[in-house]
Order: sequence, then C-alpha cells, then structure tokens
Amino acid sequence: MSDRPVRKFARHADGAHGFRWEGVDLLAYKPDPGVPFRDVTRQTLFRRDDLAGELRYFEVAPGGHSTLERHRHVHAVLVLRGRGRCLVGDVVHALAEHDLVTVPAHTWHQFRAADDAPLGFLCMVDAVRDKPELPDAAALAELRAHPETAAFLDGSTKD
Amino acid sequence: MSDRPVRKFARHADGAHGFRWEGVDLLAYKPDPGVPFRDVTRQTLFRRDDLAGELRYFEVAPGGHSTLERHRHVHAVLVLRGRGRCLVGDVVHALAEHDLVTVPAHTWHQFRAADDAPLGFLCMVDAVRDKPELPDAAALAELRAHPETAAFLDGSTKD
Repeated sequence: MSDRPVRKFARHADGAHGFRWEGVDLLAYKPDPGVPFRDVTRQTLFRRDDLAGELRYFEVAPGGHSTLERHRHVHAVLVLRGRGRCLVGDVVHALAEHDLVTVPAHTWHQFRAADDAPLGFLCMVDAVRDKPELPDAAALAELRAHPETAAFLDGSTKD
Repeated sequence: MSDRPVRKFARHADGAHGFRWEGVDLLAYKPDPGVPFRDVTRQTLFRRDDLAGELRYFEVAPGGHSTLERHRHVHAVLVLRGRGRCLVGDVVHALAEHDLVTVPAHTWHQFRAADDAPLGFLCMVDAVRDKPELPDAAALAELRAHPETAAFLDGSTKD
C-alpha cells in the first residue's frame, strides 16, 4: 500500500477497463465455470496497520456478478459507478449510483451488474474479519424457495 | 442509524443543497467567525456497533473549508464530488473527483473547496478515535513558515 498522501484517480482508464487509481493494484478474477463469480475486479484503496477498517473498490462488468456468500463481518457499500441489483437475505434491491447497502452479519448476499452497465462499488469492512462461507445444496435450495431470489440468482430478472 | 439494507441516494437533492441520502441526517455547521471552519456539512453514512470503521460524507461549499486540525486517528478520504485542495502536513495537493487522500496520525490537515465548485468527500475513520487538536499560536506560526501553506490557509491560492 502506497504511503503517498494523495493518489490520483486515473481518469484515462475510465471506460472499458473500469475505474482505476494510481498506485493501486488491480486484482482481476478470470471467468471460470469452477468459481462462483464472473467478471469482477477488486482494488484495495485503503488498508493500513493503523486503520481498523479497510476500503475496497469492486467493479462488476455488465452481466457479471459477485460471489453468493455470507460471513460474520458486515459490508458497508456505496455504489460509485453504474447500475445493478443486490440480494441481501431474501430481498432483491435495485442499485444506482451513490446508493448505500448494509449487509448485516451472517446474511447471504450477491451483487449483479445490469446487462448494459457495470456496477462499481466501495465496500468498507473490518480489517480483521472472518472468511466467507459459500452456500451448500441445502442453503441454495432454501434461497431458491423465494421465486424472486431464484430469478435473481439465475440472472433472469434485469433492471 | 437506519437498519434498512438499502438507502437510496437522493438524486433530487443533488445541486444547490449537495449530496443527500434517504434516512441519513444532515449536520450543517453554520458560518460563524468564532469557529474555524466554513460552509461544511456532515452525514454519517455508516456507523454500527459491529463495524470497526465509520464512513462519513463531508461537503464543503464553494469557497469554504474544513477545520485545520490533527489527531492520532487516520483519515482515509475519497473525493466523491467537485474540486478543491487539501493540506497534509506542509504540502498542498489539488483534488478532483475520486482522488484518494491519506492523512496519517498527528498530521495537520485541512480541506478547501474551489471557489466555483463544492468539495464532497467520503472519510473513513476508526469508530473508536481520539478528539482533534487545534493549532495554537506556535503551531500556526510554524505552519505559516511555509509560504505555500500560508497561502493555502489564507485561501489566497486557488485551483
């Protein structure tokens, strides 16, 4: 993590390759049928030994989605770019620029970009936190019992 | 603090009255020659007992500025709106949308909006933190020994 007081937003990279910042590494997940996310990049904007929180930027490409998961730690999310939807528990919410999302502890959640727009969001978490849990077959069946959730997970409802 | 999973950005309020969010209170500081800030509003976007960090949104009106202060806790800042400058230690930095600022521990800092644009920024801090210290006459004199800092504090250099 850079010690420079100011790191500039990389305006030139805004577009096809998403939001970028000087001195911030891009972690790009490659599309892979074996892993439960698609077309998501992650950049850690702030992580320091003397900060209790951590701020990351995730960008989901059009049509992509984050991992369906849950954990004890809380997500505090602000949409920075684009449009999409999120599942929090068993409710689907439409998301637009600057909307706020709270994912409470132990709550299933997933973020999906619109088909025609990326979904870029800031996510504040505790620096010290537990690892995500993925749904097993029983948990997935329970989630899918809600028609709206099932349609969301299949990507068959769109904004 | 609302327990709703999603709080919408209040698009209609974007403009003269600044960025707002549903269910988020606005703390507006009134202009007052006796206090060392001018035309700044604060909104706490995320503060929960089960989050180690806290995320606030500050908006400085055109020509306004935040308090000149320092403290042990760190500021992790992302510019969400507008333009301006910041002093970090004895260096002045120009700021534009989405730029990142780290204010290390015990470092004098101030944010100033441009004369013709607001400066709105997210600021992540530890939920548990010390109170800010204001400069006494000796500290101010030391800061003003740097011509660039003196000009910044006087608002006599502009973007």
